[in-house]
Amino acid sequence: MINRLAIIGVGLIGGSLSLALKKKGAVNEVVGYARSEEARSQALELGIIDQAAGSLAEAVASADMIFIAVPMGAMAEVFDGIAEHLNPEAIITDGGSAKSQVVDAARQALGDKFRQFVPGHPIAGTEKSGPSAAFAELYQDHRVVLTPVADTDSAATARVKAMWQLTGAEVFEMDLAHHDTVLAATSHLPHVLAFNLVGMLAERDDCDDVLRYAAGGFRDFSRIASSDAVMWRDICLGNREAILALLEQYHQGMSRIEKAIRDGDGAYLMEVFARAKKARDSRFADPDLIDNSEV
Amino acid sequence: MINRLAIIGVGLIGGSLSLALKKKGAVNEVVGYARSEEARSQALELGIIDQAAGSLAEAVASADMIFIAVPMGAMAEVFDGIAEHLNPEAIITDGGSAKSQVVDAARQALGDKFRQFVPGHPIAGTEKSGPSAAFAELYQDHRVVLTPVADTDSAATARVKAMWQLTGAEVFEMDLAHHDTVLAATSHLPHVLAFNLVGMLAERDDCDDVLRYAAGGFRDFSRIASSDAVMWRDICLGNREAILALLEQYHQGMSRIEKAIRDGDGAYLMEVFARAKKARDSRFADPDLIDNSEV
Repeated sequence: MINRLAIIGVGLIGGSLSLALKKKGAVNEVVGYARSEEARSQALELGIIDQAAGSLAEAVASADMIFIAVPMGAMAEVFDGIAEHLNPEAIITDGGSAKSQVVDAARQALGDKFRQFVPGHPIAGTEKSGPSAAFAELYQDHRVVLTPVADTDSAATARVKAMWQLTGAEVFEMDLAHHDTVLAATSHLPHVLAFNLVGMLAERDDCDDVLRYAAGGFRDFSRIASSDAVMWRDICLGNREAILALLEQYHQGMSRIEKAIRDGDGAYLMEVFARAKKARDSRFADPDLIDNSEV
Repeated sequence: MINRLAIIGVGLIGGSLSLALKKKGAVNEVVGYARSEEARSQALELGIIDQAAGSLAEAVASADMIFIAVPMGAMAEVFDGIAEHLNPEAIITDGGSAKSQVVDAARQALGDKFRQFVPGHPIAGTEKSGPSAAFAELYQDHRVVLTPVADTDSAATARVKAMWQLTGAEVFEMDLAHHDTVLAATSHLPHVLAFNLVGMLAERDDCDDVLRYAAGGFRDFSRIASSDAVMWRDICLGNREAILALLEQYHQGMSRIEKAIRDGDGAYLMEVFARAKKARDSRFADPDLIDNSEV
């Protein structure tokens, strides 16, 4: 049972956690903070939070659980803003899509309270954002990954795990660097590729025809590219190393395919396409293995 | 009304046309030819065709309408095989996803009967292939593009148009080169990018984790990459120029994004991502503009 939950960032991710815990009767009181006055009022009106805090200090003052759900670029500022105001027993967790950068920022700001910080990543989302996008069922049957490090307090990890389980999520622990690579491969890189394609086609003179005859392949790319730009900017900068390493590998593959198209090397194309299809059909198609979420 | 329809290639595309026309009572008799004996028997058993021909010559001998629905790499061979056996009044059309190569092959093989060939592209499909994947409603509310050239007989174009309209499709005419560029942009390029990503991730040692935590972005790529490898090999080779030109442009965009990630240039990333999101949300999201199909 959480007595006072502080949600920093009351959008889709933060708001949905609050709604899920309230629905379960697992929290006495939720206080929310957001930089924008509009988001705070909206979250209050929608019953996502019981109280809007005017500052980070006020939000965390007597909270026993703090969930930070702001774009990754704003995490360091939040850690700096709460460090001096934390309740000694408070547990802190977050929802950032890449963990190394967040852990570095937390370690630097929180000092000896760093051990009460449990890095987390709920793998769920929709293309929508903001308080009005939040709903109690967002995490139901989705995965939440926790990436505690050597000096993370194991009791804190257990409490964060229990909190997420109440939302209906399956909770896993994973090595931090491994998490960042896996997410770069399955989410960050696909988003970057899709943003580039959609942006490029949108600039064409014949854009209307491109849309009129757009087939399935493009529709999928287009859906990916409608995600929040600030969030993805921060993810790209926050998980830079892993994304750049994969992009390098991706380019090598593309160069080889491009050469085959230019040279009319059908045997090579057939080999690459068949391998991808086989991999997908035999393993990737297992619905149990692929999370039904956006981020 | 079609008296004798010849379907060359009795898979998803050819089989579905036959089933749709039969359902409408718009054809007296359907004869089918496929290279594989198994596909021919299956098409007979499924009622897709009334008669299986043992050769291309036999298939087209007394047909008044001929639909060629084989992978693009096999089109030239089909034109060569039917040219001498065509009924003088026969109209020929096809379902190839890129038109320039098909038109060149038809012109070369058909001689003065070339004017009875109406190049076409039904923009519809699923990830599945083969006779068992065919169904009468495949073309319902989908688009079919015809790309007649200067010497195409306009009466032939009108008959092919009327045939497709009976399937419930909307039929458009488009300039051939323009068609090939638009399809490269909206279908061929996305498929190549997806095949590369899925193939690359399938080779990783941590592939199982990649799958276990795969989020929405990857699921969309994975779905695209499960399409038929032979078909996509042939499309890549058949629409080579348009695909290579777009790939060049795609790489330029990716290089710029990659540099921004490396340099920590958040302003540039924000600009590119926001532009793509805006384009998608304001124009691409119109369901009426985006065809619900695969190819």
